[in-house]
This record gives sequence, structure tokens and C-alpha cells, in this order.
Amino acid sequence: MKKQLIRNLQVGDEVETQALVLECNRGNYSAPHRAGEFFLKLNLGDVSGSIKAILWDTAGMKELPRKGDVIFLRGDVTDYYGPQVVIAELRKLDPEKVNRSFFQPVSERDPREMLRELKEVINKEIQHPHLKLLLLSFFNEQEFTRRFALAPAARTIHHNYCGGLLEHTLEVIKICRYFVSLYPDHLRLELLLTGAILHDVGKIEEYDPASLSFEFSDRGKLVGHISIGKEMLDRKINQIPEFPVQLKLELEHMILSHHGMREWGSPEIPKTIHAFALFHADLVSARLNQFVRLMEKRPPGEGEWTEWDRYLERSIYLKKPVDEI
Amino acid sequence: MKKQLIRNLQVGDEVETQALVLECNRGNYSAPHRAGEFFLKLNLGDVSGSIKAILWDTAGMKELPRKGDVIFLRGDVTDYYGPQVVIAELRKLDPEKVNRSFFQPVSERDPREMLRELKEVINKEIQHPHLKLLLLSFFNEQEFTRRFALAPAARTIHHNYCGGLLEHTLEVIKICRYFVSLYPDHLRLELLLTGAILHDVGKIEEYDPASLSFEFSDRGKLVGHISIGKEMLDRKINQIPEFPVQLKLELEHMILSHHGMREWGSPEIPKTIHAFALFHADLVSARLNQFVRLMEKRPPGEGEWTEWDRYLERSIYLKKPVDEI
Amino acid sequence: MKKQLIRNLQVGDEVETQALVLECNRGNYSAPHRAGEFFLKLNLGDVSGSIKAILWDTAGMKELPRKGDVIFLRGDVTDYYGPQVVIAELRKLDPEKVNRSFFQPVSERDPREMLRELKEVINKEIQHPHLKLLLLSFFNEQEFTRRFALAPAARTIHHNYCGGLLEHTLEVIKICRYFVSLYPDHLRLELLLTGAILHDVGKIEEYDPASLSFEFSDRGKLVGHISIGKEMLDRKINQIPEFPVQLKLELEHMILSHHGMREWGSPEIPKTIHAFALFHADLVSARLNQFVRLMEKRPPGEGEWTEWDRYLERSIYLKKPVDEI
Amino acid sequence: MKKQLIRNLQVGDEVETQALVLECNRGNYSAPHRAGEFFLKLNLGDVSGSIKAILWDTAGMKELPRKGDVIFLRGDVTDYYGPQVVIAELRKLDPEKVNRSFFQPVSERDPREMLRELKEVINKEIQHPHLKLLLLSFFNEQEFTRRFALAPAARTIHHNYCGGLLEHTLEVIKICRYFVSLYPDHLRLELLLTGAILHDVGKIEEYDPASLSFEFSDRGKLVGHISIGKEMLDRKINQIPEFPVQLKLELEHMILSHHGMREWGSPEIPKTIHAFALFHADLVSARLNQFVRLMEKRPPGEGEWTEWDRYLERSIYLKKPVDEI
Amino acid sequence: MKKQLIRNLQVGDEVETQALVLECNRGNYSAPHRAGEFFLKLNLGDVSGSIKAILWDTAGMKELPRKGDVIFLRGDVTDYYGPQVVIAELRKLDPEKVNRSFFQPVSERDPREMLRELKEVINKEIQHPHLKLLLLSFFNEQEFTRRFALAPAARTIHHNYCGGLLEHTLEVIKICRYFVSLYPDHLRLELLLTGAILHDVGKIEEYDPASLSFEFSDRGKLVGHISIGKEMLDRKINQIPEFPVQLKLELEHMILSHHGMREWGSPEIPKTIHAFALFHADLVSARLNQFVRLMEKRPPGEGEWTEWDRYLERSIYLKKPVDEI
Amino acid sequence: MKKQLIRNLQVGDEVETQALVLECNRGNYSAPHRAGEFFLKLNLGDVSGSIKAILWDTAGMKELPRKGDVIFLRGDVTDYYGPQVVIAELRKLDPEKVNRSFFQPVSERDPREMLRELKEVINKEIQHPHLKLLLLSFFNEQEFTRRFALAPAARTIHHNYCGGLLEHTLEVIKICRYFVSLYPDHLRLELLLTGAILHDVGKIEEYDPASLSFEFSDRGKLVGHISIGKEMLDRKINQIPEFPVQLKLELEHMILSHHGMREWGSPEIPKTIHAFALFHADLVSARLNQFVRLMEKRPPGEGEWTEWDRYLERSIYLKKPVDEI
Repeated sequence: MKKQLIRNLQVGDEVETQALVLECNRGNYSAPHRAGEFFLKLNLGDVSGSIKAILWDTAGMKELPRKGDVIFLRGDVTDYYGPQVVIAELRKLDPEKVNRSFFQPVSERDPREMLRELKEVINKEIQHPHLKLLLLSFFNEQEFTRRFALAPAARTIHHNYCGGLLEHTLEVIKICRYFVSLYPDHLRLELLLTGAILHDVGKIEEYDPASLSFEFSDRGKLVGHISIGKEMLDRKINQIPEFPVQLKLELEHMILSHHGMREWGSPEIPKTIHAFALFHADLVSARLNQFVRLMEKRPPGEGEWTEWDRYLERSIYLKKPVDEI
Repeated sequence: MKKQLIRNLQVGDEVETQALVLECNRGNYSAPHRAGEFFLKLNLGDVSGSIKAILWDTAGMKELPRKGDVIFLRGDVTDYYGPQVVIAELRKLDPEKVNRSFFQPVSERDPREMLRELKEVINKEIQHPHLKLLLLSFFNEQEFTRRFALAPAARTIHHNYCGGLLEHTLEVIKICRYFVSLYPDHLRLELLLTGAILHDVGKIEEYDPASLSFEFSDRGKLVGHISIGKEMLDRKINQIPEFPVQLKLELEHMILSHHGMREWGSPEIPKTIHAFALFHADLVSARLNQFVRLMEKRPPGEGEWTEWDRYLERSIYLKKPVDEI
Repeated sequence: MKKQLIRNLQVGDEVETQALVLECNRGNYSAPHRAGEFFLKLNLGDVSGSIKAILWDTAGMKELPRKGDVIFLRGDVTDYYGPQVVIAELRKLDPEKVNRSFFQPVSERDPREMLRELKEVINKEIQHPHLKLLLLSFFNEQEFTRRFALAPAARTIHHNYCGGLLEHTLEVIKICRYFVSLYPDHLRLELLLTGAILHDVGKIEEYDPASLSFEFSDRGKLVGHISIGKEMLDRKINQIPEFPVQLKLELEHMILSHHGMREWGSPEIPKTIHAFALFHADLVSARLNQFVRLMEKRPPGEGEWTEWDRYLERSIYLKKPVDEI
Repeated sequence: MKKQLIRNLQVGDEVETQALVLECNRGNYSAPHRAGEFFLKLNLGDVSGSIKAILWDTAGMKELPRKGDVIFLRGDVTDYYGPQVVIAELRKLDPEKVNRSFFQPVSERDPREMLRELKEVINKEIQHPHLKLLLLSFFNEQEFTRRFALAPAARTIHHNYCGGLLEHTLEVIKICRYFVSLYPDHLRLELLLTGAILHDVGKIEEYDPASLSFEFSDRGKLVGHISIGKEMLDRKINQIPEFPVQLKLELEHMILSHHGMREWGSPEIPKTIHAFALFHADLVSARLNQFVRLMEKRPPGEGEWTEWDRYLERSIYLKKPVDEI
Repeated sequence: MKKQLIRNLQVGDEVETQALVLECNRGNYSAPHRAGEFFLKLNLGDVSGSIKAILWDTAGMKELPRKGDVIFLRGDVTDYYGPQVVIAELRKLDPEKVNRSFFQPVSERDPREMLRELKEVINKEIQHPHLKLLLLSFFNEQEFTRRFALAPAARTIHHNYCGGLLEHTLEVIKICRYFVSLYPDHLRLELLLTGAILHDVGKIEEYDPASLSFEFSDRGKLVGHISIGKEMLDRKINQIPEFPVQLKLELEHMILSHHGMREWGSPEIPKTIHAFALFHADLVSARLNQFVRLMEKRPPGEGEWTEWDRYLERSIYLKKPVDEI
Repeated sequence: MKKQLIRNLQVGDEVETQALVLECNRGNYSAPHRAGEFFLKLNLGDVSGSIKAILWDTAGMKELPRKGDVIFLRGDVTDYYGPQVVIAELRKLDPEKVNRSFFQPVSERDPREMLRELKEVINKEIQHPHLKLLLLSFFNEQEFTRRFALAPAARTIHHNYCGGLLEHTLEVIKICRYFVSLYPDHLRLELLLTGAILHDVGKIEEYDPASLSFEFSDRGKLVGHISIGKEMLDRKINQIPEFPVQLKLELEHMILSHHGMREWGSPEIPKTIHAFALFHADLVSARLNQFVRLMEKRPPGEGEWTEWDRYLERSIYLKKPVDEI
């Protein structure tokens, strides 16, 4: 099905495309002879941007579009305090069948390639039998792997795009591997990498997989990815015979404490060197990505400072210190 | 075996009793001809108090006593900056065989009676089939029930005695029942009582059952009773066929959020009315008990104010406003 | 005088009703021949909602309506980005003479009935002569009782409707009575109930009695209901001969410390068991009401989550865990 | 009665003096034939310092000394891990009759002179009839004035000596007068000075007048000087006919808000310019005094830094930047 | 060049004036035959206020106006949801040549007069040779003095107008002089006044001198006035032969710590009496000015309370307690 | 001169060694015939531990030892509540001439080797002419380099041993190099490494070089290493002709903001990607070292948990999850 990017729509264009309904409000007609009738004011979006739209004639519609729906629409771009689509035809699409990449931003690297890289870590670097069994019990499961490869790492802060979870996980793996090189006597590579690979697995249930805008699932809001991840770990370990108790304890602790502080959602703070290292690897990956995303959001030619970011609580200075470096 | 309460020991008494080793330090002899020899300075305790002790002759001992051991001792109470036992004979006891009530404070009410009361709540007030099955799957398990009945509710703050967990749980049940009477349209009695009964089950693994002084277990410190409780809940629910998904979600959320704030160790804050009510019931039970315990600790005839309490961050004024009320 | 509820007004309706002026701004005419003239853009409200309104012709008006005024108006509902009343006639009403229930939400229970219940508590449960005299000195005063019965318990957070203070006070009484059943050896029923009844009396001066939207009085903002309540208590006690000093001290402390923490406006924290119990009873009543109010505000059919609430700092999940419970 | 300063006592001295009992503990005799007998270990203090003491023979004593008592004692200074008085004779003194200056530090300036200065402020600078009447109603009362002149301004932080309240009040007056010179259009001298004079009157009830070590009274701990001050203000104003309502409101607000923040014990924050100025004058007087007291506590010749002060949360650097300045 | 104050513009007026561009956004034409063309929606300001403006025809413009530019404009005031200038002619002005007082608020006192007062302090009160040399090395430099006299003391909080830095510095000097009178034994006048004069010199680089709306410079945001001031101090002291090391240390410390707390931007807290006094003088000057500015912003006849101020976190009550005082 | 490690001293040993005076207090003789005489109670330390000591005869001493002195002593180890040296002979040593490694812990790696590594970074990785000149202007200065190589990185928290600053700096360099590999498009290697090398140069003045126990210098306490580092940077840059302004700004900002938050002593927070990366590299190096130091402090065979650490606010769990990993 045809797809025009919203960013490219101009006044005067004919439109025939798919879009995500971001907002949908009714408007009532004031003329007495149209009492009870109404029109729809919509805000439509895709991966490239958003646009206003209006649907005047709703009389014959069986089912009205709702926030979160994907629709097919046909119409014209007019100007009403900026461009606005006057919709001539509208119908809902099956969200399972649309091309999600039309609506969701994706990581720069191909998720399949990143997944291959992750599996290579498991195959080549993890020799410990129980750790290897544990990791394979996750990544040999097709549905888990599919969702893991598509999930974002966060909703609004860092790695907030499809494949972001995978990208973030690979980054945390790298940083952990680096920490082992700094403290080889204290950190065990295989254990730390296992923690790195699994620390955010709960995220695949924290986001509503049906949502094209990375909305949290109910369970994500009520249980959270840390406790979901702990539950997924329990389930897998319970299926592995004679999994060492002490090893389970360490892995549980790593997942539960990886946010580092109670205020940040970890029910316990890191009390082992592996949990402490994992927390810092996660922190560094998340924070640098967050900073770089803000830098990249700046509209070009708009001065040396980004806009204020409420998560980082600052603007960023972008001017290069010297060009030749 | 004979037991003399430490509180009752007086200078001049002969001693033959059991005691818990609270501290144990070596002292070196300074005389050149005794180089390499040492004596032991101990601090011994039981449920009634603590006393200093000294063991001069350690030459023939195979195994030295250690902190946490229970010992049998024979000796005399002398005076050395206060009473001090000079030990003539000392041997370790099997901690599994000692009478724990010699060492641990216990609730005023008999745990068996409290357990009966709790089971009656389950039998009489919970009709919902899945909730009833769930509760019975816990309390029909003998080992669980035994540990539940003996556990304290906290180490130093509130209900810190054997049977304290049971006493606290019954209190939270009562307060919850009361809340349902305040908001009958919003709170479902059976669901809230189930949450009240299960909210602290993780405590039975948070404390080291072998410890006579309610020390935390390693898992208690690394995972915590909230996540342990969630894990126990998962395990039980998984064994119940067709347990409603929505009901599981509510119960998980109640356990995870019952500390009310992230700073207080809950990975999520209460977002349902049942979780919110449970948090307040738990808070009120814990805080009132904590306050009353501090009031009761005051040595009689020692003024109108208790000592400063670092958990409550205050002293308490004890003078009665009017005697005749 | 006729009253149409704003919530029911529809485009095309003729209007003849009373309303509260929530906002009132002038608009200038741009045509040169109308220089100096202006129209009024208003926002009008009543207990059921609010609506925009416009008054084109202000030429002959002696006195313009102001925020907080109650007006009579006649006009038509038109559509201008939603319904808007075009006012044909407008005049101010004497706020003392309007039916306040048109403008202020009221408690579900009849204030007179609640007042009867409160007086029964005083009559039946308080036997101590000084406490009884004290309570009667408040509630035998007609003007006090009238204002107490009409006041809200808070402006925006909890029990924010006429009769809310009474409803909240009765709830705190109940919770206190319940606490006495938990700790009968430490809590004196009559003293705690007296504190419960009087803890918020200062609220009747904290709100401007003339305001239909529960605005704070100047004194409410500069002195606050806690210190006003303390002052009212002093005044009453001074009139009772031989009121026991120790009893006065306890009551003063209960009123001053009932917010529990300095950050929450109490100049002292609770240092007696009665003050501590009262604080928790007040907390529980306020917080549960606040939570339930948010639940009830949800527009039906609008998903499983309420909107974000800035006081509770959360959205609430509303889906029922199981229908049959 | 004779008085030797404790600071001057040396090993070998005969002692015959008065002292304040800072601590008093029983010690039991260990010898079997003395079972039931005990001795007393005391810590004695006066304005100059403290010393250990021991009383071996308590057999014939009718009443034991207690913490806070003033005693007459006779004995000898011996050496036992430092100087220690062996008491031969001990009897309690009537605290009302002792010379308090033996035990309590006093301000450098004579309280009577400071009081004269304060009264001159009232006489010469306050012309407004109601303010003058109000101030005189306080300072014409002899008992009030006596206690005001002797009270400290704080227990441990600033102006913590007899006459300290008076000294602090005069300082706040001066700073307020200075603020009026900075903002003459916004600040009324007479009103601000009245607030300055009265802001801490509640302190005279916050400290136990009988205590020689500035202990808080029960009421001081349960009600606090801010609310006590407000109560004293109410009482005086109620006796003045036709005291302007608006003026009362301003004065109440000044007293209640003079700690500036809720965390610092003010139930309301300053919301008028006079309250705001008073808060800053109080803050500056208290903080500078606190800093200077710490500077003066340094033992001479002990390096360039004072000890750590837990109230100021710092050590102070004392080296003079240049000698000739 | 002619200047009409924006506050005075009325619908129907012809406009010929200068203005500062506060905002500038493009609007696209929707008609197909005008594709690619655009108009400008501006917000224009001067010292008296701001107004909307529109420029329909941008076809011939070489350079578009940008935020921060000063422009000359000609046009008419029309009404479009309030007054709006339709611009007929627009051209950019050289910001160096405009009369800054058209755009920036200025202190009430003449900066030259305040500068004279400051220099008199240096001449008459500072005798210490090194301190005098240091101060003169700043104030004998013409460019420094010019910028010092024009700078604001802060952007939005206090003394936020041209000459504000000078006014604030003189006020801090006065308060410091007053503190010396309170603690003459501990504070050296010449040293404290030197610190007062220099404490904010870094502000002249913290603000962009070209900006008519007191924008921060890049260096102001990245280094801050405290570290810039320290750097300026170093530079001057390095040029004075044999400047005493100890005196440099004290001055450095005073500048670095004058915000009093790390959270407020001081890398060290005040640890000398001079630094401590300077911090409080700065605090008092800034806070009182901030409070008074808020009082003065109130539109007359608009009730007794100012609007909410997010820096002071309060509204201010303005009603005078008694008129006759 | 002979050196016996304090850790090895045993009761009965003859002692002839050097030691650092950690504490020194006078004790007075109580016998009347020795009035005015005194003995010394000392606490002596070296790199291996500390021991009590006593010097009975002080009559002929010209100069008493003081805290911080290094002494030569001769005597015997006796037993008095543990080992105690009875000193027969004691004399002060010139602190400049003692072997500092007897008293100060040193890094595991040889400082000269680490210095070589650091210089290689400068030589091989920094090509940019101004950055190279800047770094060489520091490290070509012999005295700077000597002090840099001997300084600790912190007093009590991390890398608290001679050579610690160098070790920490090399670690930060490595982490920064790693960050560049993560974000090659955003981070410039040479600039970030320059910031890493210079970020803590101020530390060489923050510690008193004469102190054998890493005491802060006065300037360290009053100015702090962040502002001292900024000053050193300014001084060097001023000597390099045509150092680019923009590059200076970036380097200043990196040094000032490397503690990341105002509460942690940075007057500005990181607002460039290089400053942000440097802050995280510093944080990770410091925190991991701090954690590992605590792990290594555990006495062997003393359970699975370290003691409580007040800086990390936790105990650490040390049990290895599986032995074979």
C-alpha cells in the first residue's frame, strides 16, 4: 500500500497514504438543522512527523477512528493555520499488517545484524555450562528473540527506537567487557556479560507490542521491567536442572539492582562487584545516548545551543572547539 | 537443660546455663613465658539481657566459640567494672536443639492461636475460588506455615519478635477490613484481605532462620522480601490452573508496591486502590507498633521522655494528660 | 430563580440562568469608529461545569462583572470553536442570596445528618467533664456549627466540597476509634476523639466563607488553619475554669502536630501517642479520599487509566481484577 | 557560700564548693558482704567546666542526688585517669537560692543595660498607639521582663547564654532598622521594630526556667516558641480595645513565619515584606553569632582551623589574612 | 530616530518606531499560485512591553530579521485577537548604534553617580596598599568600568536592569559595613569591602554585552561568573608585585564561596568569617530586591495579592496593615 | 635508619624504628611530689598500622613531639590492654629526609612506569599543536611532574595512595578512549584525552605535600582542586601564543564541570559532550576503585560481607557465585 511521508506533504498535494491517529476529537455542528451531527478533528502521525486533518462527513461511518489506530486515508492538503488534510475517505487498517517502519523510528544498525552479534557473544564468550544454557533458553525461543530485537530501550529518554534495546544491550556488553579489562582480578567476564545480556529482558513486556508509539503496557506500569525481568529469569532457571543456587542469587541481584538506587526504581542497591559494574555500564550507555540524541535533535542553523531538555535538565552547547581536530 | 536468665545473675552467683555469643575477642597474654597463648573476652546474651564473660584458659580447646554460637557454660559471677562471668567450662550447643524462646523475644499472643485466627479469615471470608486456592496453597504447606508463624515482621523497627510477622499480618488484615467499611464501593474485601495476608510472605526468607538474633539472610540482603514475595506468589499461581491474568496482575502489584514509595524499597508506587489501601494499612500497623515499642522501652521512674529514637527521629513524651480518663 | 445546569446546555438552546464568573477579560474593537469601546469574553461556571460566553454590548453597563461574581444571564448558545453563550442580558446577583448548591459541590451525605452524628459522639462517648465542656463550647455555638457544617476539608486535594470538613472529621473519628481498639492500653478514647473532632476547626476561617469556589481567606494564607485552630482552642479553654494544664498541653500538641512533619506545615512533629495516632488517622482519611476522588473523575469509556494527578503524582489503573468478586 | 571554679581544681586540692549534677550513676559493690550497697559515680559541672566525682558511702543518705540538682560538696581532688573528687560530704541545695551565674554563662553586656536600651527603643521609636500599647503590655509586666532578660536565644546554636535573647533581640532590631534605611518606601519602621522586639518572646516559656543548663520545658518541646509567642501575642492584643484587625494579622504572620521555611519550623512562609525582612534579620543575627562563637571556642595555639561543627557543617579557617590591616 | 513606546500603541495608530525582535516565525501561503512564498509572524518588544506584528510581503527581502535583532518598522496597528502591527516597511538597525535605554530597563539611580559613590569608597575607606592597588587596577580600566556600570546583577531574579550590578554592589558594601559595626573584633572593614566590591565582577562577562535582553554569553553558561571572577582576580593580582599570599587566599575564597552553598553554585562553602559575612550580605541584598520587585510588578487595583512567583515560590500579600503608620 | 613495621611488633620485642605521630596527649601525675610534671600518651603509625606508646619521663625534653611529626624511637613492647611501646628514647626527624614509603601507602604500579605511559599518550596520540603545547608545558616542568606522580587521587575515597592520581588519570584516559570508540562521530579523541590528563591537576596543590597522611592544604580547603586546576590551566594557556579561544573555553568547562553536579562541587554542570563524557569516565574510575578497595579491606575468614562503608553506604557481599568460573 502506498505511503507518503507526512513531512513531505505540501499544501495542494493529493494524499493517499497510511497514518497513525495521534488524537481524535469530535466537533459539533452549530446549525440547528444539523443538530446531533458532528465532524472529526484529527492529528495524524508517522515516523516523519505529524499533520492536522479534518473529516467533515461522519454520517455513514460504522466505527469511528480512535487514538492509536492506523488508518488509510485519501484527501487533499489545504491550508488552515498551516497545512491540514481534508479527508475524503478513511478506513481503519489491521495494525498487525501494516509496515511498522512507516510509524516507528528504527535503529541505524539492522536488528538482524545486531542479533547475530549478540548470539556470537553467547556462543564464543560464554563457556560456563549453566550460564550458556540459561542464555540459550532465552535466545533459542523465537518469539522472545523477535520481540527483543524490535523493542526500544526506553520510551523517551535513550535508545527510544525499534532495535534500541538490542543496540543498548550490545553497548552495555562492550562496556562490561571493558570493565573486566580494568579489574580482571575482581570481575568474571562470563558472569558480567550474562548480566549485561539479560538486564533489560523485562522491557519486552514493559512496552505494549501492539502500540506504534511505544506506549507502556498495563503490566509495564504496574510491575515494571525490573520485576518482570526477575520473573523471566526465575522461569528459565527453574527449567535448568541443578542450576547453582549461588549463581542464581548473583543474577537475580544484578537484574534487581541495575538501576543503582532505590529512587531510580531498584528495590535493592548493588552489593556485589558484578552488580555494581553492571549498573555503571547501564548508566553510561543510557546517559551518553541520551546526550547524543539531544545533540542530534537540534534544527540546523539554529544557534549553538540545543533547546532545554527536561530529562537532562540542561541545554547543550554544540559549537565545535576547533574545526581541524 | 538448665537456664538462668542473664538479667537475674548477681555477683557471687554460681552459673550453669546456656547463652548466645554476641561478641568474642581474643586477648593476648603479655608475660613472655606465655607468648602465643591467649584468653577470650566474650559478651553473652539471652532474651533477658547481656553480660560480660572471660575464659582464661583456652589451651585445650579444639574449636573456639564464634559470634552467633549458642554455648553451655559453667562458672562464677565476679565483679570487674560490673558483673562478669569467669567461665570454668564452655561447650558449643547444637543451635537446632536449643529452646529458641530462651534467646528470642516472642509476641505476647501465642503464635498457634494467631495462626488459627488467620486460617479462619481464609476459611470464612475468602470465597473467591482462585483467591482461596492461592491462600491455601501457602498455608496448607506445613514448612511455610511453621516459618511464617515464627518470623519477626522487622529486625529493629516494629514487631521485632517471634510471631511478630503473624501479629503484624493480623493487624493489617483488621485495618484493611476497616478500610473496606469506609469505601465499600471501591474496595473488594476478599481481594484486599488476600493482599494483606500475602504482602510480607517474603519475610520468611529475608531472615536467616538459624539466627537467634534475627540476622538477615544473604538472599534477604541481595533480593529483599518484596521481590522474594513476588517470586513466591508467581510460583504458587503458576500451579493453579486458569488463574485469571487480571487477578495475578493486581496481586503482583499489591506486593511490589506495598512500601508505597521507591525510596522505601518498592520498585513501583501503588497505582490501584487496593494497593494504595494495603500500603496505608501496612504503614499504620508498622508505625503505631514502632511508637508503642519505644514507649514501652522506657526505664520506669526515669522522667517523662523516652530516649531519642533514631528511626522515629524523636523522643516521646509519656506523661499522662489526666489520670482519671 | 431559574437554574439550568451548564453541563446540559447545547448549541441552539435559549439560556436563562445563574452562573459564577470564573474569568472575565475585555476585548477591544478594532474598527476605528468604535475606538474606546470593548466587549467582554467570559468563562462561566456552576457545580456541573463551565462554558464560554461573550457580551458584545457593554456600552450602557454601570458596573462590570468581576471574577467571583454571581450573575443572572439571558442569551443563546451558539457554536464558536465549541458552544458559547451570546449574552443578551446580564446582571449581578447578591451572593448572599443565591442558592450555593448551584455552584458548590456538596457531600453525598446531608450535613445536618452528619452534624447529628457528630453531636452524638460528643454526647455519648465523651464523659470527661473538661473535654465535654470544651467540645460543647464549640458546638453549642450556632455560628461556629453552621460554618463547620458547610466548610470543605481542603481546596483541591480531598473532601473538597461543602460538608467535606464534617465528613472528613467523622471519618477521622472512626479511624481513631479503631486505633483505640488496636492499642487499648496506650490510647484513651475520649482524649483521642476530642482531638479528632477539633483537629481541623481552624479550617472554618481558612476559607473565605463568601467565596463560591472555596478560595482561601487572607488570614488562611497568612496564619493557616493549624495556628488558627490552636488560637480557637486557647480561647475556649480560657473560658473553662480549672481546665487541667496537662490536658491543655496534650490538645495543643495534637492540633499543632496533626500534619505530622514540618515540611507539611506542622510546627512540631507528633511526640505523644495521641498526636501520633491522630496524624495517621488524618493522613489515611485524606489520602484515601484523594485517591477515590481521582478514580471517580475519570470520564467513562476512556480507557483503564485516569489522567495524571499532580498531587498524587500518578495515574490510577481502574480495570477491575475480576468481575465476579 | 564558697565557690571554687571547677576549671581551677587540681589534684591534691581540698574542695568545698557548689556544683551542678550533670550525670549520676550507681555502682554496685561486688564483695558478697556488701551485697545491696552501692556507690555513686557523678559528673559535676559549673560555668567553667566539668569534673568526675565519686561518693563511696551512700548508706545514710535519705535522698540521692539526681541529674539537674545543685549540690554542696566537700572532699579532695585525687587522680584516677585524670582528676576526680572523692566526696566526703554532699547535700542538695535549693536551686532557687543559688547564684545562677556560677552555673550559667552570661552575655558580655549587662542584661539591665540591654533592657534599658530595649525600652528606649519602645519609648522613642514607637509612636503608633496600638503598637506602643502592645509593647508596653509586655514590658511593663515585671515577671515577663525578668524572664526575658535572663533567657538564652537558643540552646546550643547561637546566643546560648543568659541575656542571649536580649542581646539577639537588640541585634535584630538594629538589622531591621538598617533594612528600613535600604527600603524606606516599602518598610514601616515602627511595625518592623515591633515584630523584631516580639518575634522570640515565646522563648521564655520554651526553656525550663529552673534548669541551670537551659533544658527545654515540656511545653517548649510540644508547642514550641513560635506557637507560644503567637499565643502570648493573642492574649495581649485581646486586652487592647479596638486593636486593628489588619495590624494583628501582620504581627501574627511575622511571628509565625520568622523561621522562613516550613522545614525550619515556621508553619507559614513569609508573605509580607515585613515578615520577609524580619526573617532575614533573624537569620543574619543568628548565623553570624553562631560562626563567631565557633571561632572563639578554639583552644589557642592549636592550628589554624577550628574543630568540625555539626550545626555549621564545617571547620573555620582562623589565620588572619594580613596582620597590619 | 523616532521612538514610540509599545505600551502606548493603540488600534488605529500609525507606527514608525524601533523595536527588538523577540520572536520570528515563517508562515506559508496555502494558495497554490503562491507556493514557496511565505509571510512573517513576529513578536516585537521594547522596554515598555511587547506587541504582535505581521509582514505579508517578504519577496524582496535580502535578509530576514532574526530573534535578537533591532529593527526599524513602519506600519499600522490593526486588531486581530488584540492589537497587531501590519508592517509596511522593515529594516535592520546596527545594534551598536541604537539607544539601549529604549530596550533595556535601567536602574533608578544614574549609573555615573553610583560609580562615583563606589570610587569614593575605594578612595576613602581602603588604605591597605595591596587592596587599594588591586581595586584601582580594576576601576582605573575604562572598558571594565563601562561594562561594570551597565551590567545587570542577574537576569530574572534581582537587580535585573542596566546599572543593577552597580546598585547591588553598593548595597552589599553598605550591608558589609553594617556587619563590621556588629562584629568589629572579628571583621576587618577594608578586607570585607574589597570582597564586596569584587564579588560579582565576573558578571560583566557572564552576560552577552551585545544582547538587549540580558542573554547569557556562551562563556557565562559554560564557566559562570564565579569562576570568571576568580580568573579576573588572579590576573590582576599577578600584576601586583609582592601581593601577600595569605591575602590572595582570602580574596579567592570570598569570591568562590559567596553563593554560600554548593547547590547554589559555589564550589566551596564559606570557611572564613569574611567569606561568611559576604555571603549573607549578598543574600540579603538579592532577596530583598527580589521581593520588592515582585511587589512592584502588581497591576494596581488587582486585589491584595501578587501573582505567584516561581523563584520566590509564593504570592505576596500587599494590603497595608494600617494606613496611618 | 632501621625500620620495623608496626604491624609486626609483638609484646616482648625491643623496638628501634621510625614512626609518625598520629596523636599526642599529656597526662598529669597525681602524686603531690610530682606536681607540674607530666607524661605523654601517643598513638604512632606507619604504612602497616598503628600502636599505642607511652613516654614517662619528659623532664629533659626541649621540644615535645606533635601530631604529624616523624620520630625516631627506642623502647620495649609491653602489654597494657594490648601492646604498648614504653619509650626509652625519642627524637624528631627531619620529615624531608625520611623514606616516605615507610609511612604512605603506594600504588601497585611504579609511578615512573605510569608516568612513562602517560607521556607516551601525549607524544603519540595528541597531534593538535595547541593541545600538545599545553600538555607539554605541564609535563615538561619537573617539579609539577614530580608532585603529580606522588599525589593521591583522593584522601579517603578512591586511589588514596601515592601514585593514585597517576593511576586514576591513566584509567580515565583509557575509559575516555573507549568512549570515543562508542561515539566516534561526536567525540574528538585528542580533546577528550587532553581533558582527561588535566582534569585533576589541581589535586597537587589540594594536598599538603609535607603531610605524610595526605592532609588537605589550607588552599585545598578554601579554593579546592577544581578551581586550582582551572587557575593552572589559565596560567599555562596564557603563555601559549594564539591559543584558540574556543578551545580554551572547552577545556575550562571540562575541568570545572568534571564532578558532574553542583552538589558534588562543580560550579557548572557538563554542557558539552566532551565534558559530559569526561565526567562519566571520572565517575566510573573513582567508583569502581572505591568499591574494589572496600572489597580488599575485608579481614580474611571473617564472613561473606565487608563492614559497612559510610561513603558507599553499604556492605559488600563477597562470596563468589561459582568457583569454576
